[in-house]
Amino acid sequence: MMTTSPATVTPILPVSDRLGDTKEYYFSSKLREIAQLRARGKDILNLGIGSPDLPPAPEVIAALTHSAGRSDTHGYQPYTGCPELRQAFATWYQNFFHVDLDPATELLPLMGSKEGIMHISMAFLNPGDEVLIPNPGYPTYRSATELAGGTARTYDLRADQGWLPDLDALAAEGLGRVKIMWINYPHMPTGAAAPPDFFARLIAFAREHQILLVNDNPYAFILTDSVQSLLAVPGAREVALELSSLSKAQNMAGWRVGVLAGAAAYLQTVLRFKSNMDSGMFLPVQRAATVALDLGQDWYDQLNTTYRQRRTVALQIMDTLGCTYQRDQVGLFVWAKTPAGTDGYRTCDRALYDHDVFITPGGIFGTAGEDYVRISLCSPVGVLQEALDRLGGSAQVRSKANGQ
Amino acid sequence: MMTTSPATVTPILPVSDRLGDTKEYYFSSKLREIAQLRARGKDILNLGIGSPDLPPAPEVIAALTHSAGRSDTHGYQPYTGCPELRQAFATWYQNFFHVDLDPATELLPLMGSKEGIMHISMAFLNPGDEVLIPNPGYPTYRSATELAGGTARTYDLRADQGWLPDLDALAAEGLGRVKIMWINYPHMPTGAAAPPDFFARLIAFAREHQILLVNDNPYAFILTDSVQSLLAVPGAREVALELSSLSKAQNMAGWRVGVLAGAAAYLQTVLRFKSNMDSGMFLPVQRAATVALDLGQDWYDQLNTTYRQRRTVALQIMDTLGCTYQRDQVGLFVWAKTPAGTDGYRTCDRALYDHDVFITPGGIFGTAGEDYVRISLCSPVGVLQEALDRLGGSAQVRSKANGQ
Repeated sequence: MMTTSPATVTPILPVSDRLGDTKEYYFSSKLREIAQLRARGKDILNLGIGSPDLPPAPEVIAALTHSAGRSDTHGYQPYTGCPELRQAFATWYQNFFHVDLDPATELLPLMGSKEGIMHISMAFLNPGDEVLIPNPGYPTYRSATELAGGTARTYDLRADQGWLPDLDALAAEGLGRVKIMWINYPHMPTGAAAPPDFFARLIAFAREHQILLVNDNPYAFILTDSVQSLLAVPGAREVALELSSLSKAQNMAGWRVGVLAGAAAYLQTVLRFKSNMDSGMFLPVQRAATVALDLGQDWYDQLNTTYRQRRTVALQIMDTLGCTYQRDQVGLFVWAKTPAGTDGYRTCDRALYDHDVFITPGGIFGTAGEDYVRISLCSPVGVLQEALDRLGGSAQVRSKANGQ
Repeated sequence: MMTTSPATVTPILPVSDRLGDTKEYYFSSKLREIAQLRARGKDILNLGIGSPDLPPAPEVIAALTHSAGRSDTHGYQPYTGCPELRQAFATWYQNFFHVDLDPATELLPLMGSKEGIMHISMAFLNPGDEVLIPNPGYPTYRSATELAGGTARTYDLRADQGWLPDLDALAAEGLGRVKIMWINYPHMPTGAAAPPDFFARLIAFAREHQILLVNDNPYAFILTDSVQSLLAVPGAREVALELSSLSKAQNMAGWRVGVLAGAAAYLQTVLRFKSNMDSGMFLPVQRAATVALDLGQDWYDQLNTTYRQRRTVALQIMDTLGCTYQRDQVGLFVWAKTPAGTDGYRTCDRALYDHDVFITPGGIFGTAGEDYVRISLCSPVGVLQEALDRLGGSAQVRSKANGQ
C-alpha cells in the first residue's frame, strides 16, 4: 500500500445534515485571520472578543496551585461537581442575587456556560421544535438550536424599545411550536439591562405559553447598578433556568467554569445528556472556582472602576467613528450605531485593514445589528488609547479641546 | 404570586426523544450509590472505575502552577489548542507511535477523548445512519450514537476469536447503511491487544465498505508490549481517525486532555461542531499537557512496573471469585469469566453488598460481557490486598500454601 499524502485525503463521509448551515463559530475563523495578519507583521489591536485581560484574584490562583500539588486531586470527578463548589454557588446566588437554591439539586456546575447552551438544547429539543432567540444576540443560541435539530426563530430587539422583546407581538404570531426562549440580560451585544418587573413579565409570558425560558447571565456584575437573576421572580423555577459563568466578572474565561441553576427536574434531564458527553471538572479548578465565588463586593467594585475608565475611552473611539450610542449601557462592551451611509461590516473592515484595529461588526449578532459596531472593554486603557490614536481620535479630541 | 417550593416543580417540557433510551451514564449513578453507602458508614473499596490514583509527573504540575501564576494565561483560548501543544502531540505520535502528523492540521486537542466521541458522532451522523460498536465495549459509543440520532449496531467480540471483530461475518450481514465503526485496541473491558496486521485488515475493510473507522486509544501505553496506532497503517488517513488521551498513561484523568488525530478534512468537520459547543482549553492545562507529552520511556516503564504488581493481586482476587481469565491481557483492568451458575451482576452484587468491595459487572459493557467481571488496577496494592482479604482470598491463598 502507498502512503497517502495528507493533502489528498477526501473524506468518505459528508458532514451531517445538522452541520449543513452551521459555520465555524465566527470568532474561531476571525481570530485565525488576525493571527495570520500578525504573522505577516501587522500589529493588530484586537478590541473584539470579550475575554477579560486581567487575571483572577491571587487567592484563586493560590487555590488552584495548592490543590494541584496534592496527589489525590487528579482523578475523574463526579459529573455534578464537588459539594463545596455547589455550596459556593448557592451562597453566591444567595448573597448577590438573593435567590435560595438547593446546592444538592438546583445547581449544576458546567465547563463554562457555553456548553450549557448546547446541553439544554440537546436535552429538550426535538426536530421541528421552535426556539426563540434574540436578534441581535449571541450566535451560539442559533447554532446550538440547529445542531440539536430545532428551528431558530428570531425575535427582534430594537433600540426604541430598550432592546426588549415585544411580548404582545410575539404572542400574536402564535407560539404553539415554541419550546425554549433564550434571553440574556444584561444583554450582549446591546448593553441593555432588564428594567424592574420585566423579568416578572417574562416569567408570566413563559408560563402562559408553556415555554422554557432560559436567561444567559454572564454579565450580571459588569457595570450594572444591581445584580439581577431571573430566578428571583416568584415561581420562576417552574418555567425558567439560568446560566451563570465565572468567565467575565471573575476573570476566568479560559478556565471554563459556569453553572446551570434551576429546578431539580430540569437539571436531571440536562445531566442525562451531559454525563454522556463529558466528565466532571478538574478538581483544582473547582477548588479555585469555590474561592472565586467567595470574593466580596470589593472585588466587583474595583473591577468596575477599571471598566468604567476603559468605557470612557471606548466611547471616544465610537465618537471618532461617528457612531452614536446610549450612555446607560451595562456589560463588558460598548455598542453604537454607525453613521448613515455605512454599516457595521464596512466600518469594522476599514478599522481593521486601514488602521490595524479589530472591532466587531454588529451584524454577526443578527440582522438587527447590521448598523452597529461593538467594542470590548477587555483591553487596558493604554491599548484603547492607542486604538483611538490610530483611528485619528486623539487629533479630533485635541482639535475639539483647541476649539477647532 | 406564590413562591413555588422546588420539590413541586414539574417540568413543562418532556425530555427530547434523543434522550429517550439514554440513561444517565452508568458510573454516574453507581458512584452516587457508593457515596450513599459510604455516607451510611460503609467502608466500600471501589475497584470499579479506571481513574488512575497516582499523580502526574511533578514537572507536569509545576508547568500548570507556573503558567497559572502568569497574568496573561486566563483568557479564552483558540479552539484548536495552542501551537506548542499541537507540536507536542505530533512529536509524541512520532516518537512512540511512529506516525507523522501535521501539527497544524492533523491534530485537534480535546477536553478528554470522551467528548471526542460525541463530537465525531454529531459531526458525521444523520438519523438512520448505522454505527458499528463493540459488544462488549465502552458504553459511550452507543449513547453518543443515539444522542446524535444514529442507530447503534453491535458487533460481538468473543474470547475464542481473541476479542476481535469477525469482519467476514460483518460483511455478509450487509453494511450499506453503516457510516462509522468504533474500535478500541487495546480493548476495554476485555484487555485484548490488536495482533500484528489486524489494523491493516481493518483499514482495508473500512476502505472496501466506505466506513469511517475510529480507534479509541487511551490504553496504548498500559501493560502493552508495543505502542500501536491505527494511523500507522499506510493509507489509514483516508478512512480512519484516532482518539488519544492523557487520562490513563499520564495520570491526568481529571484534567480532561485528549486529542483527535487524522486527516485535516475530517478534523475541520469535527471543529465545526466543537467550536459551537465549547471553547479552547485552559492554557495552564495545555502547558502542563505539553510537558506530560514530553515524558520519556522511563515514565511509562515505572508506571507499568506498578501496574504489573497490582495485576498480580487483582488476578488473585479473580481466583478467589472462582473466575477464569487470559494471562496476556493489556490495559488498565483485568477481565475474567465468572464460574458456571452465576453471572457478572450477581458476582458483583455479592462482592458489594456482602464484602464492601465494588467491582464492575461485565454486562454494563454489553450482553457479551454478562458472564464477566472487571477489576480496575487503579488502586494501590494495599487496597487490592485488603479487597482480597475481604473476599476471603488470603485465607484461600494461605490454605493452598499450607497444602490444605
